[in-house]
Amino acid sequence: MVSETIELRGHIIDSLILPKVLDQILTRGANFKIGEIKIGKKRADQSFARIEVSAETSEALDELILRLRQHGAEVEERADVQLALSPADGVFPDNFYVTTNQQTFVRLNGREVEVEPAMMDSAIMLDRNKRRARAVKFFDVKKGDEIVVGHQGIRVVPVQRSTSGTDIFQFINTSIAADEPKSAVIRELARELQRTRGAGGKIALVAGPAVARTGAGEHLERLIELRYIDLLFAGNAFAVYDIERSLFGTSLGVDPDRAFGKGGHENHLRAINALRRAGGVAAAVEKKILKSGIMHACVRHQVDIVLTGSIRDEGPIPGVATDVIEAQKIMRDKLADVTDVLLLGTVQHSLAVAAMLAPTVRTVCVDIDGSAVEKAIEHQPLQSIGLVTDVEPFLRELVDSLASAAGKTENRNRKT
Amino acid sequence: MVSETIELRGHIIDSLILPKVLDQILTRGANFKIGEIKIGKKRADQSFARIEVSAETSEALDELILRLRQHGAEVEERADVQLALSPADGVFPDNFYVTTNQQTFVRLNGREVEVEPAMMDSAIMLDRNKRRARAVKFFDVKKGDEIVVGHQGIRVVPVQRSTSGTDIFQFINTSIAADEPKSAVIRELARELQRTRGAGGKIALVAGPAVARTGAGEHLERLIELRYIDLLFAGNAFAVYDIERSLFGTSLGVDPDRAFGKGGHENHLRAINALRRAGGVAAAVEKKILKSGIMHACVRHQVDIVLTGSIRDEGPIPGVATDVIEAQKIMRDKLADVTDVLLLGTVQHSLAVAAMLAPTVRTVCVDIDGSAVEKAIEHQPLQSIGLVTDVEPFLRELVDSLASAAGKTENRNRKT
Amino acid sequence: MVSETIELRGHIIDSLILPKVLDQILTRGANFKIGEIKIGKKRADQSFARIEVSAETSEALDELILRLRQHGAEVEERADVQLALSPADGVFPDNFYVTTNQQTFVRLNGREVEVEPAMMDSAIMLDRNKRRARAVKFFDVKKGDEIVVGHQGIRVVPVQRSTSGTDIFQFINTSIAADEPKSAVIRELARELQRTRGAGGKIALVAGPAVARTGAGEHLERLIELRYIDLLFAGNAFAVYDIERSLFGTSLGVDPDRAFGKGGHENHLRAINALRRAGGVAAAVEKKILKSGIMHACVRHQVDIVLTGSIRDEGPIPGVATDVIEAQKIMRDKLADVTDVLLLGTVQHSLAVAAMLAPTVRTVCVDIDGSAVEKAIEHQPLQSIGLVTDVEPFLRELVDSLASAAGKTENRNRKT
Amino acid sequence: MVSETIELRGHIIDSLILPKVLDQILTRGANFKIGEIKIGKKRADQSFARIEVSAETSEALDELILRLRQHGAEVEERADVQLALSPADGVFPDNFYVTTNQQTFVRLNGREVEVEPAMMDSAIMLDRNKRRARAVKFFDVKKGDEIVVGHQGIRVVPVQRSTSGTDIFQFINTSIAADEPKSAVIRELARELQRTRGAGGKIALVAGPAVARTGAGEHLERLIELRYIDLLFAGNAFAVYDIERSLFGTSLGVDPDRAFGKGGHENHLRAINALRRAGGVAAAVEKKILKSGIMHACVRHQVDIVLTGSIRDEGPIPGVATDVIEAQKIMRDKLADVTDVLLLGTVQHSLAVAAMLAPTVRTVCVDIDGSAVEKAIEHQPLQSIGLVTDVEPFLRELVDSLASAAGKTENRNRKT
Repeated sequence: MVSETIELRGHIIDSLILPKVLDQILTRGANFKIGEIKIGKKRADQSFARIEVSAETSEALDELILRLRQHGAEVEERADVQLALSPADGVFPDNFYVTTNQQTFVRLNGREVEVEPAMMDSAIMLDRNKRRARAVKFFDVKKGDEIVVGHQGIRVVPVQRSTSGTDIFQFINTSIAADEPKSAVIRELARELQRTRGAGGKIALVAGPAVARTGAGEHLERLIELRYIDLLFAGNAFAVYDIERSLFGTSLGVDPDRAFGKGGHENHLRAINALRRAGGVAAAVEKKILKSGIMHACVRHQVDIVLTGSIRDEGPIPGVATDVIEAQKIMRDKLADVTDVLLLGTVQHSLAVAAMLAPTVRTVCVDIDGSAVEKAIEHQPLQSIGLVTDVEPFLRELVDSLASAAGKTENRNRKT
Repeated sequence: MVSETIELRGHIIDSLILPKVLDQILTRGANFKIGEIKIGKKRADQSFARIEVSAETSEALDELILRLRQHGAEVEERADVQLALSPADGVFPDNFYVTTNQQTFVRLNGREVEVEPAMMDSAIMLDRNKRRARAVKFFDVKKGDEIVVGHQGIRVVPVQRSTSGTDIFQFINTSIAADEPKSAVIRELARELQRTRGAGGKIALVAGPAVARTGAGEHLERLIELRYIDLLFAGNAFAVYDIERSLFGTSLGVDPDRAFGKGGHENHLRAINALRRAGGVAAAVEKKILKSGIMHACVRHQVDIVLTGSIRDEGPIPGVATDVIEAQKIMRDKLADVTDVLLLGTVQHSLAVAAMLAPTVRTVCVDIDGSAVEKAIEHQPLQSIGLVTDVEPFLRELVDSLASAAGKTENRNRKT
Repeated sequence: MVSETIELRGHIIDSLILPKVLDQILTRGANFKIGEIKIGKKRADQSFARIEVSAETSEALDELILRLRQHGAEVEERADVQLALSPADGVFPDNFYVTTNQQTFVRLNGREVEVEPAMMDSAIMLDRNKRRARAVKFFDVKKGDEIVVGHQGIRVVPVQRSTSGTDIFQFINTSIAADEPKSAVIRELARELQRTRGAGGKIALVAGPAVARTGAGEHLERLIELRYIDLLFAGNAFAVYDIERSLFGTSLGVDPDRAFGKGGHENHLRAINALRRAGGVAAAVEKKILKSGIMHACVRHQVDIVLTGSIRDEGPIPGVATDVIEAQKIMRDKLADVTDVLLLGTVQHSLAVAAMLAPTVRTVCVDIDGSAVEKAIEHQPLQSIGLVTDVEPFLRELVDSLASAAGKTENRNRKT
Repeated sequence: MVSETIELRGHIIDSLILPKVLDQILTRGANFKIGEIKIGKKRADQSFARIEVSAETSEALDELILRLRQHGAEVEERADVQLALSPADGVFPDNFYVTTNQQTFVRLNGREVEVEPAMMDSAIMLDRNKRRARAVKFFDVKKGDEIVVGHQGIRVVPVQRSTSGTDIFQFINTSIAADEPKSAVIRELARELQRTRGAGGKIALVAGPAVARTGAGEHLERLIELRYIDLLFAGNAFAVYDIERSLFGTSLGVDPDRAFGKGGHENHLRAINALRRAGGVAAAVEKKILKSGIMHACVRHQVDIVLTGSIRDEGPIPGVATDVIEAQKIMRDKLADVTDVLLLGTVQHSLAVAAMLAPTVRTVCVDIDGSAVEKAIEHQPLQSIGLVTDVEPFLRELVDSLASAAGKTENRNRKT
């Protein structure tokens, strides 16, 4: 039987930190003894716990402690991080530390440096001169870079619940099932987006092809016109569906205003050809080839557009990032200062984006597939909300709420 | 090698009768030789085919011919049906003939009698005196009743495509997937319902609990007020959700106008208790206990209500048919003269009702689960349409279409 | 601002009681102040917390306290329960208390009486003379019975985590997704079932029709032969599928040993007819009409069979409880001393059974539909496990594990 | 009213060509008159029909005729194809003809040339000198290439049912639902794969990450060892899951042989790092870093491996095609001579591959999501089969069938 002592700080009970730590200990067949515990008496007060954890073998204990640290446990020993050199470009040293998306500090010469950005599944690269610690991906690293190895000297600080006020994102693991009412949540979301807008936040939209196909496009255009979108991430197919509709009035050859008639891919391919000929979305808008639709609204309202390729794509239209690693780099850069993300109707892109978000980014995921929603929000347990429903009615209701609020504001402004 | 000759009549090509017959023959490893074929030159013309079917063994041939008859194949031999007596109450004689939902005739003393109603999975009972043939269920039969056995003397006439005009129901195996546009189909449906209403048709609504829970109730109330529903089939839970909302403003304890707050079953149970105390839905409306909601609208607008019980029910409220066989009898009677059925958000009830429909009843199924939609419409291949979507936005759009049409009609009437 | 003081006892941190209480308080916009807290130092030690809860209005506070009590919060005041008389047969008095499935005590003349059984969504009936408190359904109550009203004098004791050992059921909210490995969990489950069997536990199986249709029947027969099932709950359709297969070798007319050939309902109906003629399952086994299959194995191995009816049933076969309220009564009685429940491939029956279980019954739910699994296990957070997968491979692997274990035991016995 | 005459040839009734043509005509509100019809008397005989199609406007007629041609209708006029020059690299001329995946001929100087390969959603490029017609994608075309425009001079020949024998792929639109028995189909599939193998066919496997995660890996290894796979298409994630399991015994950090313990991404990332350091899969096998698993089996048994990247990937490991357009080119080349394709547990890759297949390639799709299965097989209506189930039990049963057949063959060989 071997043991080690850990410490927990902050809102460790209502943010579920202490319960998760004890759950991990019990689940892994280990044991605990609480040495000292101080529970904050009021909501704003910090709590503290010192816990002696014991396990059968030192290997089991090490693995357990490693997990506990990712829930914010600190071991009393305060050593510096260990570093090793990358053996080759694009390769980390053995035993490199893998990040979570939680705020993380490394101890260098006895002082803590924050790792930036807070992005999961990365290594940590240290620049001793600049005293900077960066979360890096394989493609970032060069031979000889100093990378954190092992688990020593690292401190993780989980997101904790806000101590003042409770907005709609402050609920734990929230998702609204298909058979539950959603209107009130959507109206509340509209209010949160208004607050974000008012506070100068940056909102990213990640949208799947169904959004463009099912008639949700018009709602999205209004959302863009109301200036609620700063950044659009989508695939080539999303853009092509929107452009097909704008150029030919069809969606995969089907005219959505006629009840029936199985269509084909002709117009889809002609839309791609038209954009390739024009030289891309912005050029097509400028040349008045593209005169309506979501992409058109994005160009007109200076929404930053990032289109990425997939193995299923036709085309692509010019401007699509067809190399997935290049696309990841672009996404990472663009997401750096985003505060709110809407993930609509796209498993693939939603999970890609969700994996790049800091844990404080507020995330809304809407999909007709409940398991996709669960996966997209699981890394943001205190900052996310999921709705299992069609995207079209969701967007309609959201935009109606925002527009009616905007109307009121306008009226108020006129009166004054 | 044994063979037999069959004949097909009607719109056997565009109603897929001849292709299905050939498909069955090939699929079962048999062979065919077309003796005579006359194809109608124009759309309204009838076609005719005489086909010699051959198989390895006479057993295989018999089984094959049996299937082909259910697709409308007639064998040339024209014998009378064979009959046997039921050995006991609720028991059919061995080898009883099992019906499809197609129009069926039995030959008695050389003359054909139509089996009524056209309902699948039944036996056929003959009343020689009255020259009547009835499709009967186990619970209908008494010891000594004469029941059709074997396959002789039976003719099945599949539904064929209309030869004049093409409405939205005339498409084969139609369902609209989650990621396809639906607005135009819904508007077309609205027009069909208006025509039904104008022609004195009878519309039944089969609704699942989610319809009452997700906020679709208000749209349904409008549909009832516009007089588009003659008959409501639902479970006890559907009624209780609606009544809970009407009495307490909540749905499973959750106030749909507040964003959050996990509810409980208290109000659900109190709603049941209130109805039990009042003596049922109609009594509760009369006593002004129930003053709003779907059930209230049904009572006020004389919609015929059939509530059935399930193993999961609390309560039930008075008037619910808790015996499932009794409930089936009631449903069968009420469905006899129905012309259009809406199946909304309920697998269990939709399949129960679909199994009782004549093949000419026009059927619309809406559910978020695509496989439920497929199953509900498979027996009505030329008279049904399925939409994979949330019920709430479907109903909203349908009712908006009907209301705006009603508005126009009203205006037109005023002008004249 | 009004406030009240609550107390929590037991393993309130690792069983998530304190966190859930604080979560409720914050979620509902209330506030807290911890007056006293003692955290158990070791795993086996009890903890204690006294918390002052405050809210804006006394109504809000009352509603909040009511929720907190269902998580085990006790208010300091120790009054007797309040009682009212039932106004009519089958009707509870207004404001009746609605139970959870947690252990519950009511205070009568200053002494606590436990409510039995621990079943959710019931009222509590008191028999003063016998000092007994019973959870009752609408159908249990007679005019003049004494029923608990309001929330005073009631204490709820949530299930807490075991303090010794950790079996597979001791994990919180466990379900294994479709794309996660399941073999190890199934083997562990097999070991738990062996322990249950060894300890004289009673195992109930709730099975949907797909279990009989997809070829899982043979595994189930082995499970019955190995004596791992004491009680079978299923619908009429489950039994008929099994009997069709046994009598005709088909499943909805399809021979599972031939690759193809769309079948029909004939054999399904003939199987029902055969059983109706024989007089039921047991009679058909006795008369050697039914010589194989799941139902046959149940009869031979004295498994208690409860078959219930649904609105979609054909038949039914004799012995099926067609009245759903009668069926519920039978189920409640049979489930009283069950210790383990397997819910396989049936949403409807699984939820019906899950709503009747005490929170200590260990529950395994297997279904290909993830949301069905979630709902079936949500009321047993510390005693249940869900697997999203096909039932057939699950059963095969479970039975293989049990059989190989049985083989080993046998061998060991032989050696000694 | 305008009209045009079309002709149909071949097995136009049992391959559903004539019914589909009439269905299209009626669905689009047009009309028909059959001028001449000769129906093949026996199964092997060809049929012929000449049909006058009439519509309201010449635009409607043109659009209709265009659709009918894709079902094999020929218009009597026999003009040459029209050509136009590509205006720029990667851009087709306006009004370019879009291919289906059916066999297609273009008429050049009065003689027909077959378009190769038979791949959908492409343009047709003509090389006059070589008298060759190629289906080309955007990335294939250079400025000045001659591309077919309009619809003149093009003949489409739909796949028709085989006239001798009926294998498991000859059923129309076949898919086996989750609740249907699958064993017999899987055994039949095994026999077909043996025949393919015996006839020198080439089998491609397209596999999603769940195949490697859920424990299906060992079955797949056996399938590779039995030499039933010539080509593996998968994503980076599939390979990494397999390698993580091989190197660390875990799947996303979870040891599949232990029942529980939520894992993490560390081992996933370390597996990538190990492969990057080794220089790729083949190098890792050679250096004895990778000593087991699916990828190892592929290298040892000379299976051709194509790994493609996605926006969600970590890494990637060396050898992954990260540019999606490059990946498509590689896939197209490798698929050219494939005869059978297995699509297992991956929507994204399955649809990408399905879109590149000739209509005669036999396709099996297995997925737990029914709608994914439908989409993957819809372009191969006479050559595909779908199973809605877990991949793991499917593979186990398939491999068991193949192995037992192999055993028998071996035994037989030994005896002789």
